[in-house]
Order: sequence, then structure tokens, then C-alpha cells
Amino acid sequence: MAKVGFVGLGVMGGGIARRLLDAGHELAGWNRTKEKAAPLVEAGMTWCDSPREVADRSGVVFTMVTNVAALEAVTGGPDGIVAGLGPGKVYVDMSTVSPAASRELAERVRAAGAEMLDAPVSGSVATLEQGKLSVMVGGDAATFERVEPILHDIGPTVTRVGENGQAVLVKIAHNLQLAVQMLAFSEGVLLAEKGGIAREVAVEVFTSSAIASPMVKYRGPFVLEQPDEAWFDVNMMQKDMLYALEAGRQLDVPLPTTAITNEYLTAARGLGLERQDFAALFDVLAQLAGVEKVRD
Amino acid sequence: MAKVGFVGLGVMGGGIARRLLDAGHELAGWNRTKEKAAPLVEAGMTWCDSPREVADRSGVVFTMVTNVAALEAVTGGPDGIVAGLGPGKVYVDMSTVSPAASRELAERVRAAGAEMLDAPVSGSVATLEQGKLSVMVGGDAATFERVEPILHDIGPTVTRVGENGQAVLVKIAHNLQLAVQMLAFSEGVLLAEKGGIAREVAVEVFTSSAIASPMVKYRGPFVLEQPDEAWFDVNMMQKDMLYALEAGRQLDVPLPTTAITNEYLTAARGLGLERQDFAALFDVLAQLAGVEKVRD
Amino acid sequence: MAKVGFVGLGVMGGGIARRLLDAGHELAGWNRTKEKAAPLVEAGMTWCDSPREVADRSGVVFTMVTNVAALEAVTGGPDGIVAGLGPGKVYVDMSTVSPAASRELAERVRAAGAEMLDAPVSGSVATLEQGKLSVMVGGDAATFERVEPILHDIGPTVTRVGENGQAVLVKIAHNLQLAVQMLAFSEGVLLAEKGGIAREVAVEVFTSSAIASPMVKYRGPFVLEQPDEAWFDVNMMQKDMLYALEAGRQLDVPLPTTAITNEYLTAARGLGLERQDFAALFDVLAQLAGVEKVRD
Amino acid sequence: MAKVGFVGLGVMGGGIARRLLDAGHELAGWNRTKEKAAPLVEAGMTWCDSPREVADRSGVVFTMVTNVAALEAVTGGPDGIVAGLGPGKVYVDMSTVSPAASRELAERVRAAGAEMLDAPVSGSVATLEQGKLSVMVGGDAATFERVEPILHDIGPTVTRVGENGQAVLVKIAHNLQLAVQMLAFSEGVLLAEKGGIAREVAVEVFTSSAIASPMVKYRGPFVLEQPDEAWFDVNMMQKDMLYALEAGRQLDVPLPTTAITNEYLTAARGLGLERQDFAALFDVLAQLAGVEKVRD
Repeated sequence: MAKVGFVGLGVMGGGIARRLLDAGHELAGWNRTKEKAAPLVEAGMTWCDSPREVADRSGVVFTMVTNVAALEAVTGGPDGIVAGLGPGKVYVDMSTVSPAASRELAERVRAAGAEMLDAPVSGSVATLEQGKLSVMVGGDAATFERVEPILHDIGPTVTRVGENGQAVLVKIAHNLQLAVQMLAFSEGVLLAEKGGIAREVAVEVFTSSAIASPMVKYRGPFVLEQPDEAWFDVNMMQKDMLYALEAGRQLDVPLPTTAITNEYLTAARGLGLERQDFAALFDVLAQLAGVEKVRD
Repeated sequence: MAKVGFVGLGVMGGGIARRLLDAGHELAGWNRTKEKAAPLVEAGMTWCDSPREVADRSGVVFTMVTNVAALEAVTGGPDGIVAGLGPGKVYVDMSTVSPAASRELAERVRAAGAEMLDAPVSGSVATLEQGKLSVMVGGDAATFERVEPILHDIGPTVTRVGENGQAVLVKIAHNLQLAVQMLAFSEGVLLAEKGGIAREVAVEVFTSSAIASPMVKYRGPFVLEQPDEAWFDVNMMQKDMLYALEAGRQLDVPLPTTAITNEYLTAARGLGLERQDFAALFDVLAQLAGVEKVRD
Repeated sequence: MAKVGFVGLGVMGGGIARRLLDAGHELAGWNRTKEKAAPLVEAGMTWCDSPREVADRSGVVFTMVTNVAALEAVTGGPDGIVAGLGPGKVYVDMSTVSPAASRELAERVRAAGAEMLDAPVSGSVATLEQGKLSVMVGGDAATFERVEPILHDIGPTVTRVGENGQAVLVKIAHNLQLAVQMLAFSEGVLLAEKGGIAREVAVEVFTSSAIASPMVKYRGPFVLEQPDEAWFDVNMMQKDMLYALEAGRQLDVPLPTTAITNEYLTAARGLGLERQDFAALFDVLAQLAGVEKVRD
Repeated sequence: MAKVGFVGLGVMGGGIARRLLDAGHELAGWNRTKEKAAPLVEAGMTWCDSPREVADRSGVVFTMVTNVAALEAVTGGPDGIVAGLGPGKVYVDMSTVSPAASRELAERVRAAGAEMLDAPVSGSVATLEQGKLSVMVGGDAATFERVEPILHDIGPTVTRVGENGQAVLVKIAHNLQLAVQMLAFSEGVLLAEKGGIAREVAVEVFTSSAIASPMVKYRGPFVLEQPDEAWFDVNMMQKDMLYALEAGRQLDVPLPTTAITNEYLTAARGLGLERQDFAALFDVLAQLAGVEKVRD
């Protein structure tokens, strides 16, 4: 078993850290708000006073944070992870950040003598708990092989898709489709509903049809009732859309449905729905369609 | 067994007629080009000289044609179906047409003393051959009950979704999502590809991910190689988009992703791709992204 | 002076008819609601009992109606204009209709032995009253030359742009830009306003800038206060957008900004703003942006 | 006369600097490539070895650079402008940058004891040479009054629109409309052209119509022939669109036509047109419409 470290112990990061602990690894960790780490400390994780200390103590360091700014905060500076890296160590970032930021960070890690992989996961907390997470990995093949066994302790499907930054690229190229599918689904539901078909019926028909992706199946019913807590809120979704749009501009790929959908996410914020699951795209469109009772 | 009639014996209509024949119904039929009906005549179908004659001879008449104009051609005028209808007869249109046109036709059928149902199917020729077609039905409940047994001879899933015109509405509200999902998928694939990931890899990842609807699973690989014959070509897809956009305007439902995607279907025609499967949306975007080798 | 006829005596049509009368022409007319024609009858116009009678009595017949359906209503059937046309007569339609409908009508007129021109005007009632209307004409050159002097009695600028249907095509290709410019203007104003700049200041800056088209100059201030009566309401504007989108599909020209803006006109209807001037595009966007006080 | 400094002596910056010199001010300057400054040095400008030295020597320092990164390069660090500022000095940035970046820089200037104004200009090099430039100013009123006379030496129209960052906000809220109007204009021209009307005729009609903004008047003819040198190229235009989209997200203002048009600018880059004037939006659309001869 390896000496591993984990920085960013929120719902998702904390759950992954727990799996590493359960698999028998020696775990050191740090989180911005210490309280959240308490259950893990109780379960055997060593608390560190800075991200750097986590890196100092570990052969393989993981991060799972919210965005590029948070990633910079835990990796840069004298207390950051990069300062604690060195030859032989591997740094694995599981956050969904922009490919450009990920590649640039890999450069800095390499300059410190270590290696980096980007390893975003696909799936939700539920998937994680079921032990079914998929991990996509970007980085060089030799480094990948070294940490592959540890990644398998996180989820059963581990795939190297390419070089540094390419796994997060695939992730955001995937995530843009979540939002677009949701807006198109909302168009379909509202068309049926204003034509006299009960919303429940439309949802039922669509969720067992040719457009019923897993996303449509689990999120479609949210147009009937939003979950108590957002699975992936408007702001989180827009963050990924922005990374996609940024990458599109850098790679000269026009993203018409992404761009249009992103403006509806902005509208969701304009209407005060930013903390709701991004199924709130439905609410924006429903309001424009003059639907009086948007939600129960 | 019932005396049934079928007008519009193309690939899909002919296949459905065959199932009715196989189920033991007495079948009369007509088609714009007589040759296509030859195998059915050989199998026992009575050929009629006009759509009206089909209606004259049948208790339940089906149509399956391409669009509103073709529907008007087989139902209107002295040789049309409506002229052959009367009390006790049921007319079932399986075409995907505009809800408004369907409702208006139902009025004319009612004025002739008969009843109409709109009954579009979901699924392709392959689904039909596997005996797995779903039929959605719009029209009054009593009429539905009368013909329900015959509809079950067509496919295993038969659902009444509402009144006249509402089944075709659900169908087009569904179909718009096919096109939008395909364009969003193309955005994702091109983003990955221009970021250095092989197109095959992107297709593989996406077709087993949270956005992998049945449509994405079967049509996604078309960005690697278009099928020899279009499953659903650009023009057919655009026809459904136009019905959706028309319904959206009549019902005051804005359809942003539908509207944008529809303009890309127009661009596909501008680029000479109108006879290709609507996966040609990928080709339009690939061209704008400066991808040199759009297809093998 | 010529024997001229005029069908469709609304605000714009009536004003044009008045100019023809004032210029000394012998005028016969018909309108769907007879009362509106009273002032013209008083001023010397001969009232007719049907559009056909207008055509019977006149060498040159004008129409100015709302849309394709209204045009069909006054030209078709036994009481319609076409029934009253014959060799030597010229029919001039000043309505903004779809190019396809206009071309098709020209065929029917030609079959009746007469000639047709499409002659939409650019400018509002105010322009008309100032005697500054521009008339664009589609149709053959010889016919154009015959009626050109009469058209000059309507407005000072008379230009033949091409064959039948091409003048209305130019008109709708122009009008789509009105709506798109208005939505883009609304985006600019709201961006400034939510950034802390008074709406009045934004309007003032933009209406004297590089984007200040005549449309922006006169309609821009409508975001401060809608006029008592719509100059060109949401439904009228959408009608022209639909003709443009229809022509775009027929000619294989993608119209991305037109398509998107059109969905915002649909949203304006969803929000109950259909009778307002199409500057209501601002209200739709303002609502999405969470602006509390959309209008005074 | 004042001691003024100017950093960023490109075509526009250099032209403004020349006007300051001509007005009798004592001028110090710096530019990334020294050669471009030679004519100004010959005309009396004192060359400095760093942006900081310019600030050291001047009471009022101007900058005119390309984007946020370039602005950071000349203002930050030990050799940057901020290091040379202090109480009583005023720093005026004439660049078009993001409002957020401008506000943040104003904070840093204030921390250094000086004051900053954002003062973007509207108009091109031609406008500058005619002495007709408009200057919009953001910042506090007292500071504005102190430098107002100097700004009048640059152009005749000087308007304070609000606080720090608000002048650049108005500028980008204006510029987004340039691009959207250009794409809508292209839609109109192509619709007319594919309907059989000569492109020249369409351009002529539109440039003297209700949608003929100054931008349409001068840039419209570019669809007939691009200028030898871009007035404002695709990349420059996209930069401003991105600042607008960024501001839209921060202020919760959806920008639908901006977002869609921006993707067409990306497509222009995909097609290799990034160095052309942004009238290249026409070329992208023309290609999608299957127009064979896009340009002479």
C-alpha cells in the first residue's frame, strides 16, 4: 500500500479519499475547512497543516477542487502542493478545470521534478457510493502505469485518454452536452405541455425514448420536482461551459448549442436560480413560455 | 380479424402493412408508385385504384406518408380517403406531420361521420423488424379502445397520450431533441479531436457516458463513417424541426436550441449534404472548425 | 390620369390610396371593414362591393394587406382580384408577404392575361405623410415602366430591384435586420445598465454611435418608454421573420441571428407582449436579467 | 501645458500621442518596439526606457494597448507604470479591456496614491485624423475635471459616463453590436443574393435603409471587397466580444446574439480568416450557404 495524500475533501473528494483509506492506503489530507475532514481523521487519515505538508508526506498526491482559482490556491505559493513535490512523486488532479490551466500546471510540476496526471471522474456521488466511478486520465504512459493500481481503488474503469490536459478536455467536451441536452429536453417538455399533455406524461415518454441518455433519465424528473439539494448547480455547470467555450476558442471549434445554452444558464442566475440544480434551465424557458406554475 | 386498409407503402408503411397482413387481417392498399406494393399484393393485399377505394373497402384505414402535403394529397379531393369514410369507420394516420394539420384533418374526418387517431411510431425500420415499435396515439378514448387490438399487431407498446394531434406533438417534441443532441455531440467530438484526441476515442468515451442516449449510441459512430443509406436524412429531420418550430410559435414556446440546430440543417443543404443522414451536422461544424479530413 | 383601384385600406394602404386620389387618379376601392374606407369615399373614391369589382373597373389595381392568408382572401375565388383581371391590366401588390407566395400569385395573374408587380414600401406612416416613401419593385421591366409614373405619385424613390418576388425578398432580408439590431441593442443597454450606467445614458451614447442605424435612433428610446401604439408590433415583426426563415430554407441560407431573435419574439408572446412594439424584445431580455423595473 | 506620458505607440496610440505633442504638451513615451516611436521622437517626444520611467516623468500618463495581458505587462512589476505613480498623478487608460480588469487596476493605482480613469475612444484611425474622436471616461468627477482639457486636445467630444470601469463597459456594450449587426447584414445580403439579386444591389439598398448604421455604411461594402488591411480584424473583434460575454456573466445579463455571433468569429478563425476584417463573418456564412464565389 502506498503513502497517498488528498487535498480537497468536499462531498466528492472526501468520498474518494474514504475509498483510498478503505483500500488500506496510508492517507494524509488537508481541506480548506477543517471540520469537513473530521470523519476522515477519525477513520485514520493524518491531518496536515497545509497542502504542501500533504505533498511532503506522500508519494502520490490527489486534489479535487472546484475551479482553476481553487486549484491555484492549493498548488501555488510556499504552502502549496508544488512546493512539496520532487523526483519520484506523482500529483493527480481530479478536478474539472480548463485544459489550458491543467497543462500549465503539469509544466510547473515537471519543473519541480515530479509528474502530473489529470484524472477527472465521470459520475455523481451516487455512482461513487456504488463503487462505479469512471476515471479518465491524461499524462504520460509510464506515470499512468505507476499509479493505475491506486486509481482502480477509486473506481473500476480507468482509462488513459491522452497527454496532460486531454482528460479534462474530454470531460468538459462531455459536460457541455449535459447542459445542451437538458435545455433541448426542456423545449420538448414545454412544447408538449403547452399543447395540452401533462408534464408527467411528457417526462415519462421522453425518459424511455431514443433521446433518453442516463442524464435525461435521472435529471428529467427534476422538471417535476427539483431535488432538495442540487446535484450539480447552475454555477458549477456554467463553470464547465466556460472551460468548454474557452477551449473552443483556443482550438477554433465553434460551439453553437453550447454558447446558446450558456446564456440560459446566465439567465438562470438573473432569475435567482443559481443554487438550484442546472435543471433550472427548464424554469427559465418555462417563464418565457408564460407557464404559470413552473414547479410544485 | 378486421378489414383494414393502408395508404403509403414505403419502407416503413410497407413494413407495418406486412405485419397487419401477417396478423391475419384482410388488407387493402394503395401507394403512389404501384411497383413498391407488388410484394404485398403477392402476399395477399388487395390493390385499390385510389386512396378513396381503400377507405371504401375498410373499417380501419391507415396512412403513413412523408409530410403534410403528401397527407393532403391522399386524404383530400374526390379520390381521397375522407371521401370514402363514413359512420363507424376509423382513420389512423401514422405520419409525422404538424399537430395543427393533424387536428384540422381530424375535424374533416369527424364531419364525414368517422373518427380519426394520430398514431406516430417511434423507432426505425430495424425496430419494426424486431417487432418492437412503440405507437403513441392521439384521439378520443372510445375510438382508441376500438382499434387498440389492431395497433398491438403493429408493435408491443401502444399508449394513448391525449386528444387529436397530441401524439404527433409528442413525436416532434421528441424528434427535435434528436437533432440538438447530435449537434451538441458534434461539438464535443470536435473539441476533443482538435485538442489531440483521436475521433474514435472521443466517440467511444461519449457513447458509454451520461449523455449516451440510444440516439447517441447508434448515430454517434456515424461521425466516423456515414451509413450507405441515410437512416433519417437532413431533409426529413428538418421537416420535423419545422413542425416543432411552427408548434412552438403557435403555443408560445421559445425553442432556442431547436432554432439554432435547424439553421445548421439548412447549412448542411447549402453544403450539398441534404441526402445524407442528419449526422451530417457533424460535417458542417467540422468544416467551420477547419478540419481537413471530415470523413474517411 | 389612370383608373386605379385599391384593396386593403388600413392605415398604410389608406394613406397610399389617399395620395393616389390627391394626385388626380380616378380611384375605386374595397376594404374588409367598410367603415375605414368612409373618409376616402367622401374624398371621391368609388366604393366597390368586392375585390373583383375593383379589378373590373381599374387598369392598375393595388393591394396592401397583412399577410399571405389575407392576400389569398382578396385575390382568390370568384370575388377575388384575379377573377377581374385580364389583358392590359397590371396588378401591384404592396404587402410584405413571402417571396414564394408572391411569385406564385404572379403566375396566376399571368395565366389570367395580366401582369403583376410586387412593390413593398420601406418606411412608416410618418414617412408616408412626409411624402418620402421608397418603393421597391419586382417584375418585368416593361410592366414596371408602364406603372412607374403612378408609383412616383406614392413616393419619390421608386426602384426596380428584379423579377417577380424579388422586391419582397429584399424587403424581408431588410426587416430581419431590424429585429436582430433591436435585440443586440437590448443586450448592450442591459449590460451597461446592470453595470451601473443609467439606461438613459446608454441609450444616448448608442443612438449617436457607429451602431446607430435609423432604426436604432427612432426605436432605441422605446426601451425608456414604449409608444402609446405599437409602430410595428411583435406579431407583425415575427411574420416577417418567418417569411425570412422560410426563404432561407428554400434558398439554403442559414440565418443564425434571425433564428435566435425569432425565438425571443415568441418569448415576447409567451410573456403577453404581442401587441407591443417589437422593442418588447428588450423587456424579454430584461426579465431574464432580473431587472426589476423593466418600464416606467 | 502639462507633462504627459504615453505608453503604447501603435497606429492608434501613436496618433493620439502626436495630437498631444501638436497641442504643445511636453511628451514622454515608451513602446514595446522602439522603432515605431522614431517619428514621435523626431517630433519632440522624450524616449523612456520603461513604462515606469514614463510615469516618473509625467503628471498624466496614458496607455493604449491591445488587451488585458498587454495592460498588465506595462502597468505591473518594478518597471511598470504603477510603480512610477504617486499622489497628484493621473493615469488614463484608453485601451478596450474588460471592465473587471479596469476596475481592479484602478484599485492598484489608488493604492499607489494616484487616480485612474478609463477612457476608451470611439472611432477609427480615420476619425482620429479628422480630429473627430469621441472619448468616454470612467472615474471620479474631480479627477475627470483635472484632465478634461487634455482629453479635449485628443478629440472634440469628451463625456464622463460614470465610475471606474464604466466607460470600457459602455465601449464593449457598443462593440458587441458591431459584430451582431455585421452578421445580420450578411444574412440579409446572402438571402437576397441566393434569391437572384446582385450582391451590389443588396448592399446598395441596405446601406441606405433603416438598418444602415454608420458601421453598415462603411463596412457593408466590404462584402464586395475586403480592404487591403483589416480595419478591425476577427481576433480584435472577438477580444471585445469575450469581454462583453465575461461582463454579461458577471452581471447576469444573457447575451444571445452576442454569443451566437462570437461562435461565427471562432469559425472565421477555423477557416483561416483571423487576420481579415471582421466583415469576414460574411465569408463564413457564404460558405455555409454554398456560395461559390465568396469574394472577387
